[in-house]
Amino acid sequence: MSRTQDAPWAEPLEAVLREWAKTAAARDKAGGTAFHERRLLRESGLLRLSLPVEYGGDGAPWSTTLDVVRRMARVDSSLAHLFAFHHLQLATIRLFGSDAQIRHWSRETVAQGWFWGNALNPLDKSTRALPGDAGGYVFDGRKSFCSGARDSDQLLASAFDGDGRLLIGITPTNRAGITVLDDWDNMGQRQTDSGTVIFERVPIAADELLLNPGPLSSPFATLRPLLAQSILCHIYLGIGEGALQAARDATLAQTRPWIASQAERPAEDPYVIAHYGDFFVALEGACLLVERSMQAFDCAWARGLSLTESERGEVAVAVATAKVAAARAGLDVAHRMFEVTGARSTTAALRLDRFWRNVRVHTLHDPLDYKVRELGDWALNGRIPKPSFYS
Amino acid sequence: MSRTQDAPWAEPLEAVLREWAKTAAARDKAGGTAFHERRLLRESGLLRLSLPVEYGGDGAPWSTTLDVVRRMARVDSSLAHLFAFHHLQLATIRLFGSDAQIRHWSRETVAQGWFWGNALNPLDKSTRALPGDAGGYVFDGRKSFCSGARDSDQLLASAFDGDGRLLIGITPTNRAGITVLDDWDNMGQRQTDSGTVIFERVPIAADELLLNPGPLSSPFATLRPLLAQSILCHIYLGIGEGALQAARDATLAQTRPWIASQAERPAEDPYVIAHYGDFFVALEGACLLVERSMQAFDCAWARGLSLTESERGEVAVAVATAKVAAARAGLDVAHRMFEVTGARSTTAALRLDRFWRNVRVHTLHDPLDYKVRELGDWALNGRIPKPSFYS
Amino acid sequence: MSRTQDAPWAEPLEAVLREWAKTAAARDKAGGTAFHERRLLRESGLLRLSLPVEYGGDGAPWSTTLDVVRRMARVDSSLAHLFAFHHLQLATIRLFGSDAQIRHWSRETVAQGWFWGNALNPLDKSTRALPGDAGGYVFDGRKSFCSGARDSDQLLASAFDGDGRLLIGITPTNRAGITVLDDWDNMGQRQTDSGTVIFERVPIAADELLLNPGPLSSPFATLRPLLAQSILCHIYLGIGEGALQAARDATLAQTRPWIASQAERPAEDPYVIAHYGDFFVALEGACLLVERSMQAFDCAWARGLSLTESERGEVAVAVATAKVAAARAGLDVAHRMFEVTGARSTTAALRLDRFWRNVRVHTLHDPLDYKVRELGDWALNGRIPKPSFYS
Amino acid sequence: MSRTQDAPWAEPLEAVLREWAKTAAARDKAGGTAFHERRLLRESGLLRLSLPVEYGGDGAPWSTTLDVVRRMARVDSSLAHLFAFHHLQLATIRLFGSDAQIRHWSRETVAQGWFWGNALNPLDKSTRALPGDAGGYVFDGRKSFCSGARDSDQLLASAFDGDGRLLIGITPTNRAGITVLDDWDNMGQRQTDSGTVIFERVPIAADELLLNPGPLSSPFATLRPLLAQSILCHIYLGIGEGALQAARDATLAQTRPWIASQAERPAEDPYVIAHYGDFFVALEGACLLVERSMQAFDCAWARGLSLTESERGEVAVAVATAKVAAARAGLDVAHRMFEVTGARSTTAALRLDRFWRNVRVHTLHDPLDYKVRELGDWALNGRIPKPSFYS
Repeated sequence: MSRTQDAPWAEPLEAVLREWAKTAAARDKAGGTAFHERRLLRESGLLRLSLPVEYGGDGAPWSTTLDVVRRMARVDSSLAHLFAFHHLQLATIRLFGSDAQIRHWSRETVAQGWFWGNALNPLDKSTRALPGDAGGYVFDGRKSFCSGARDSDQLLASAFDGDGRLLIGITPTNRAGITVLDDWDNMGQRQTDSGTVIFERVPIAADELLLNPGPLSSPFATLRPLLAQSILCHIYLGIGEGALQAARDATLAQTRPWIASQAERPAEDPYVIAHYGDFFVALEGACLLVERSMQAFDCAWARGLSLTESERGEVAVAVATAKVAAARAGLDVAHRMFEVTGARSTTAALRLDRFWRNVRVHTLHDPLDYKVRELGDWALNGRIPKPSFYS
Repeated sequence: MSRTQDAPWAEPLEAVLREWAKTAAARDKAGGTAFHERRLLRESGLLRLSLPVEYGGDGAPWSTTLDVVRRMARVDSSLAHLFAFHHLQLATIRLFGSDAQIRHWSRETVAQGWFWGNALNPLDKSTRALPGDAGGYVFDGRKSFCSGARDSDQLLASAFDGDGRLLIGITPTNRAGITVLDDWDNMGQRQTDSGTVIFERVPIAADELLLNPGPLSSPFATLRPLLAQSILCHIYLGIGEGALQAARDATLAQTRPWIASQAERPAEDPYVIAHYGDFFVALEGACLLVERSMQAFDCAWARGLSLTESERGEVAVAVATAKVAAARAGLDVAHRMFEVTGARSTTAALRLDRFWRNVRVHTLHDPLDYKVRELGDWALNGRIPKPSFYS
Repeated sequence: MSRTQDAPWAEPLEAVLREWAKTAAARDKAGGTAFHERRLLRESGLLRLSLPVEYGGDGAPWSTTLDVVRRMARVDSSLAHLFAFHHLQLATIRLFGSDAQIRHWSRETVAQGWFWGNALNPLDKSTRALPGDAGGYVFDGRKSFCSGARDSDQLLASAFDGDGRLLIGITPTNRAGITVLDDWDNMGQRQTDSGTVIFERVPIAADELLLNPGPLSSPFATLRPLLAQSILCHIYLGIGEGALQAARDATLAQTRPWIASQAERPAEDPYVIAHYGDFFVALEGACLLVERSMQAFDCAWARGLSLTESERGEVAVAVATAKVAAARAGLDVAHRMFEVTGARSTTAALRLDRFWRNVRVHTLHDPLDYKVRELGDWALNGRIPKPSFYS
Repeated sequence: MSRTQDAPWAEPLEAVLREWAKTAAARDKAGGTAFHERRLLRESGLLRLSLPVEYGGDGAPWSTTLDVVRRMARVDSSLAHLFAFHHLQLATIRLFGSDAQIRHWSRETVAQGWFWGNALNPLDKSTRALPGDAGGYVFDGRKSFCSGARDSDQLLASAFDGDGRLLIGITPTNRAGITVLDDWDNMGQRQTDSGTVIFERVPIAADELLLNPGPLSSPFATLRPLLAQSILCHIYLGIGEGALQAARDATLAQTRPWIASQAERPAEDPYVIAHYGDFFVALEGACLLVERSMQAFDCAWARGLSLTESERGEVAVAVATAKVAAARAGLDVAHRMFEVTGARSTTAALRLDRFWRNVRVHTLHDPLDYKVRELGDWALNGRIPKPSFYS
């Protein structure tokens, strides 16, 4: 993957990863907000990676941005998620917003070094959008699963108006009426700060609303859920790769084979080796599917408003395939890695179970069964996935 | 299972389980020693369940004692393990000790209400047995994975003498020179207190040594590892059943199906239902294999010293089959249950991941691959498993 | 399984199996009707096995009759199916017919040595029942999947009357208007003669119709589909066991291990042995589930008309569980056995693929997915299977 | 796949495939030699596809040649194998032979329209090479598994000299002393003519021996087994794709859903659709792994004698990964396709079981377990596969 090695941000990325790695296990135990690690990310310049060059960004294609997400996920899948969702919010503005909005928030993000948080969960319908002044609205209610809202500078938030229409607005996180709760305590992805945000009559001005062209307004705009799904793919794959590396370290460190084994070392045991073969095949297959889906995504993104429904549909199929394979590979490696690392590797000091907890939680974002169904409907009936916030 | 319902200890057992259930999740978080819950166990009278009636015990067959273990494991697999290992120590005395030793320690256990702990791990060879006074020995060194040593009254401990012979001795836990460390901190089975015991020149008298007939001295004596393996079977199965019950509660509590589902409730979703079908088939198969292996074990136990090598071999095959099936079923249900409980079930408040962490850790006791190999060697080559501390 | 060894029909059964085994591969190639092997079955006396003693039968419980089916299936699953379906027709008379009908056809079956065939497939609705003389009907149309109709003496046939009601009638196979086609040519179960029967205005007298109490008329009568499903279980399991035996013979006959193996013989190769371990665990689990379901079935049968819906439901769950496990085990062993028998075992001379072809075809009788669904609905929602011709 | 569509041989290929498809099922039943279909292949010009342009060939890269193999395998995997092995023999001359030999046999193959057969099986050591005249040898003995020897023009044959050295020679198939037996009768790949060739004192001249540089003489020469393994990959994948297409046709043709299904048609049944999703994910992953391995192979081939051991090792890893994934996907789809095609699809008229029989037989070429082991040894220990005739 030469593309990341030679880039100007390659060295800052490596520095960030090295620092994260030191405390990944401890922070998995602690949970809460990774203020220090988030600050490293801000300082690294990587928060502008996907922004166009004309607005001061690095202009990295999405394949590159998500490759960075995957590398991060090998080390710390919570922070990888926050980094990815920051860029997803910026992509949302580009897909749903006007040219003026895109220009404004892109430039400001670079200028102010903003870290974006998410308050958009469209399945949580308890936030209402009431009519406000001058074409604006007032958001009122609670929003759950708001990844990265804590310690963020700007939020993308959603609410439903009286007609049940989804409105997406932008607001500084510190605007009056917004309270970001520190109530995320989960079995995995423990530092994603995916807690609750409370909106108490928070005004959103007309030019802060992504109304034009608006959500899922064109095949191009429906790339948003595909980008979100692609982020998931890269995180699952990264977790699987991280788990494999951790397993390998543990196996190679062991010196005593099982008493019934005729091998000299665990690393020479035929059953141990076979497990690694299985892990490798699963991850390699997922890796190629993920990389192919991103090539397709980059092309679709470049097509802009010319993108057709059927072209978008083929990207959706590629992304869904990648997602199913990456989820299964990540889950399988994280679940079975202990069969090659042995009983002592379960000590809480190593917290090797975090790979499983992280991928187990994250693969529940939306049900895998229904992704498989989408693919079956394509393979059997030739139907492309119908765009939604999850397809 | 009528056998447990009508028994005099059935109600005390239910009372203990109800109390354990209240705090199982919280104690999984806390780790450490479950003093209160261990005290309930002492008070319940269940610590004498497997002891012969002639010595004041309940005279329950092993199938019954381990059925209790399985019920416990549905609620709290750490405490189930401690309860089971208490009885395993008593069984060890009966298999390896003299009649006088059996009588003495059985009676005293009943009279004093002793809770036995384990310091026997035969894979840890760092404890030496030095010659002592009057045919006794002095144990010196450290022992790892000593389940239930903390808060115990008596210990079964092992050490190797100068010739590499394994010696098994009995000592009060509070004898001078013994230090039970509080150093067990693991990703699963967090309240099994499976930490380190330090022996600093601890004298073990001649009549405290299980020398006659001694470890693995007859086909009957080699039932000890089969009892240990059977305990594992019951714990894996109990965890799987507990996970299924917890999953069911979570699924039934959900009211909103996935947006792409045409079902009215998650419990009517075709994919959700199919997962439950798979879980059920796996657990039912494992359940029958476990129950059959215990019938065989009870018979073998009743045969005493008349038990032949080949009869013992058939029990070993039955137990190994049960173990592989129970481990796979338990792992599978605990791993996949989240696919039917949904994203919100991953909140740390529920700690539903404890089923996976517990069964994942416990199934590493000895490698499953080598149990499968034993069974293959039987099915293909007609060879019965060779007795060892794990077969 | 002592029950079959000491029985008067044990030796005749062994004799039949020995003879069948000689030509099983050749007859799998030839297809068509196994006249010689069917004659051996007639002569063995086994066709009266399940009939009550009072009518001249052996009075074997269903668990015993199906245990014979399973033994047969190890050798020849087509003939096992014909034998089983013969008894299924007799059971149908006992479940759906009047006392007089039961007495008459039971006695005549013994007296005449009848072999019963099946023309009952309720999914094929192209046979009509038109009103006939004196309360009788005239059957007219075609019926597919009529196992064992060729070379049979009596047929159980079904047709739908003008109101869509299913009528079941009995007729000698050689009655005027009946033509049994020799048109069964399938990839598996090649000698089950499951072809088409044509009814051209065939009169069925009133006393030849099973109207009173009639099909599925009581919980007891709905044991019919459970018996049919149990037959499938035993055939799947028998095929799996036959495949394992054939695989073992092939592995043990091989002398040269794979060039990359360090074993001296294939039977000592760690991967070969592991496959056998997997096969063994799967078949043992299925075996116990099948045996348990038959104990439940025998009890339910003995309850007769006192059988309640919910008792029947529990038997249905036990049978469905056995079926899923037996189907999966049989399919898996027959599919994977070649990984341990090597490339040379694929020669057409051995026809080892017949195990896979037989179990593959037979497990399509009704979709496994919907059996799993039934079990999930029980495990999750506590609903017992709703009686139908397949549940 | 634009590369094959625009090529001059694209239309001839389509014509050949259309003709093969008409009789594929019937010829699977018949077995024997497909003279007519082989003649179509000769006439199509495709036998010179991989030969360099300078010698009159089409100069297609191996990725293209094997893409043709894959397309063929969707329709008829026996003929795909013969076509592929023809090109493998030509590759063998290029890898093991001198420049003069390469030039001579390449040109003659084009000029005479030769179809090459295989008599090289290095595991069969019963053919001896005795010293002959003028540096030549005399081959004497039998050779098994000689794919495509019947109806061939030229053979590549192997024999062992007195020192156990493997010699590879070239001979016209009709040379005196050579008898090609028509003794291939297998459960799958039935028209590959993989029978026995008898050599009765057959002289092989010095310039017919591939001695210089000779077998596996350089990293470049060891590409031969990787090409052979790549051929297997493409055949497995093609069979899987053919099976999926056949399944789809069958499912879409069905109109009646299962009685317990709420879908209107089988193609709308949730479980049916899910199976297709699984098939699709498996085949897509395998497809990308296969395509990537061929890109690596093309590059390695282009490197010629500059290819290093470690570069070759990475290609070997890519090919082995592709092989494991393609074998598993092909086996899985061919095994499970019947669960979506229903009971009627098992009629012998369709012979849909041929996909399973073909891939089952072909995946036994060399044990998958040892390919997985190779990959595990790479993933865990960083060891590249050691070149052999199977790695």
